[in-house]
Amino acid sequence: MNGHAVESVSHLTQTGIEASKKMAESSSSMHDLDASQLTVTLTQNPREVPGLNSAEVWSVKACTDHMVTVKWTDDYGWHAPKIVPYGPLEIMPTASCLHYATQCFEGMKVYRGYDGKLRLFRPDKNCSRLVSSATRVALPPFNPLELEKLLKALMRLDGPRWLPKTQPENFLYLRPAMIGNGEQLGVVSPSEVLLFIIAVPWPDLSTGWSPSATAKPPGLKLLASKNDIRAWPGGFGYAKVGANYGPAFVAQMEGRKQGYDQILWLFGPDFQVTEAGASNFFVVWKTKEGKLQLVTAPLEGKIILDGVTRRSVLELARERFIESSEYLTADIKSLDVVERTYTMDELVEAEKKGRLIEAFVSGTAYFITPVKTVNFRDEDLNIPMACEDTGHYAGVLKQWLLDIKYGKVDHEWGVVVEEE
Amino acid sequence: MNGHAVESVSHLTQTGIEASKKMAESSSSMHDLDASQLTVTLTQNPREVPGLNSAEVWSVKACTDHMVTVKWTDDYGWHAPKIVPYGPLEIMPTASCLHYATQCFEGMKVYRGYDGKLRLFRPDKNCSRLVSSATRVALPPFNPLELEKLLKALMRLDGPRWLPKTQPENFLYLRPAMIGNGEQLGVVSPSEVLLFIIAVPWPDLSTGWSPSATAKPPGLKLLASKNDIRAWPGGFGYAKVGANYGPAFVAQMEGRKQGYDQILWLFGPDFQVTEAGASNFFVVWKTKEGKLQLVTAPLEGKIILDGVTRRSVLELARERFIESSEYLTADIKSLDVVERTYTMDELVEAEKKGRLIEAFVSGTAYFITPVKTVNFRDEDLNIPMACEDTGHYAGVLKQWLLDIKYGKVDHEWGVVVEEE
Repeated sequence: MNGHAVESVSHLTQTGIEASKKMAESSSSMHDLDASQLTVTLTQNPREVPGLNSAEVWSVKACTDHMVTVKWTDDYGWHAPKIVPYGPLEIMPTASCLHYATQCFEGMKVYRGYDGKLRLFRPDKNCSRLVSSATRVALPPFNPLELEKLLKALMRLDGPRWLPKTQPENFLYLRPAMIGNGEQLGVVSPSEVLLFIIAVPWPDLSTGWSPSATAKPPGLKLLASKNDIRAWPGGFGYAKVGANYGPAFVAQMEGRKQGYDQILWLFGPDFQVTEAGASNFFVVWKTKEGKLQLVTAPLEGKIILDGVTRRSVLELARERFIESSEYLTADIKSLDVVERTYTMDELVEAEKKGRLIEAFVSGTAYFITPVKTVNFRDEDLNIPMACEDTGHYAGVLKQWLLDIKYGKVDHEWGVVVEEE
Repeated sequence: MNGHAVESVSHLTQTGIEASKKMAESSSSMHDLDASQLTVTLTQNPREVPGLNSAEVWSVKACTDHMVTVKWTDDYGWHAPKIVPYGPLEIMPTASCLHYATQCFEGMKVYRGYDGKLRLFRPDKNCSRLVSSATRVALPPFNPLELEKLLKALMRLDGPRWLPKTQPENFLYLRPAMIGNGEQLGVVSPSEVLLFIIAVPWPDLSTGWSPSATAKPPGLKLLASKNDIRAWPGGFGYAKVGANYGPAFVAQMEGRKQGYDQILWLFGPDFQVTEAGASNFFVVWKTKEGKLQLVTAPLEGKIILDGVTRRSVLELARERFIESSEYLTADIKSLDVVERTYTMDELVEAEKKGRLIEAFVSGTAYFITPVKTVNFRDEDLNIPMACEDTGHYAGVLKQWLLDIKYGKVDHEWGVVVEEE
């Protein structure tokens, strides 16, 4: 694996640890997040586990039996974490999160492997990113390693019943979230905060199947944004904060009305390609000079999300799509992996000149899904989909990641949750 | 009064009414907001009314006895509004408002007049703006006239005890808000929404007094934003949505640490002056050509909030700061009222050349408050404050608005709430 990338991961975790240490040191009475203080109250009314990929799962309402909650107050820091039965939160109408979008979250999954084991995928990355997102909206930092312990504790409890060992190759969606809470309406950073973790049976969006469109052909249709801009330098596009989502729903709904699955967000007078809906966006093309490239928008400028899947795609591609790699085939050739600003004009030209090989989105919800259409200025750009209705590269990358997530191969990114 | 401005107000209300009509017409089973359906459940435990400007008021936690709640669902539209005892909301951990910032609000006040009457100030403007904000974050529209009726109903109930007739010249802060609710975690516009209205005793921020700084000299100190951008074209800076607030708290906290009251938000490579914290920003200066001007950033580009106080200042200034006006004095001369893009360089030059007369912020929370300092590039720009520690123009505008709000003069902007 790419040594630089590994260093950068632990650097991010280190940044989170240091931010929370700094907070703790600011006053001796401030407590850091501490998973060893966890208390558990078991549910007396276990909920019904919905059928795999059932309509109930597609409704995205059915949570597992328990949730983690942790309170933070500005005079104590992080209180003892609790696991309690899943249920409604009591929130005052004056709570900061309801008015000022003092909120951030993570999206990750827990996988039941072929070997019967439960695995998280690179949980350190999500836990560190939550610290980074939290501090962007004036919420307190915490030691990300402790959050990882809490995720595992919740899964040790609910995993066995909600992801039975007899049904490998299934997953739950995990949603750690932080919200500004308390009773104070003033336009200031909240003096009380709630961190919670819920687990949700989630549809597999990467297959293209849904109850309302059983025969939907694979491949996403994207509509390039017209008037709305998702993020701006000096803003918060890089952070997984609520403020990036609600304002994007209008364009998304308009796109769906027109028959598109997601918005492809552009930026600037030259229509730079940034990211797609709630996913990062990748292109495989040949340059004018005939060089094969895997291209995606850069993190510099901080307008796109630093996706865990995005990072994993880049790292695997840099490691395996190289000359004399054992992974090369007739269809999979070595290529350059490039993070740089590129524009819709470049994409259109590559398509017109037959240099466009494939495109795909990457993310926790959509995983790796090929893109077949991008509508730009009222014209549909047709993107090749290669073998079996996916791209060659997208297909291989998806399989590599699945093998890690479901434990077909042993890899440090697949972190086992020990069950009793 | 300026005819064009009045037309534009009713145009905005009309836009809101039409948006909600369109929604209602989309399906015969969809219901619009209807204040005549209001039901009232009185509290059995009246809350204690805190002392005027007391520490409890400064904590901004004490709400009045009741609140309005109205549910919207995508299969019915707006359900019957309720007045219920003030208390916590039950919100599912999966609710859209906690994750995706599907939320917007209004800030307005209700005033107990010198004549013992309760008044709202231009409530039609706030109600229409809430429709405009809601639709920017994929929340449903409603007839804004019905919201105004609900505001009056709440005040008819809680006004007499919380703003006693024996204590004129006091006010409550009113907070109508809308949040995406329900149980669905999917990244889509919410299928259930809650509209609520609460009323909060609020400190008078325009006096400069606070429990922690009793002898604080008047005049705000602003810190010009450095790295963070509040809003951008194609974004949502014009809307009163939560997404504009949380991400601004970090700069605001940093400013307070450095001794400044609010951030002055700049935009673009030429450092355009946009708005201040949660207020609009006005400057009175002489141009190079010697013309006296009242200047504020324009609404075009949609990056600043269309403030009700801002609009009122512009309308009164255009009506009264004109030649041969009865309002002119030795200190108050006729001037041009200008909405245009202007930069920090222009502000700095005006100050250096002695052309800067005064500056002030306008808004519901800070009302009209003079600004005495703007820090830009680590240098404090000193702004003249004229008579009695306020600006001449700021002082006059503030008094005109107070006279309307507290009923010293009869004006169509002061809308009386009939009490029993």
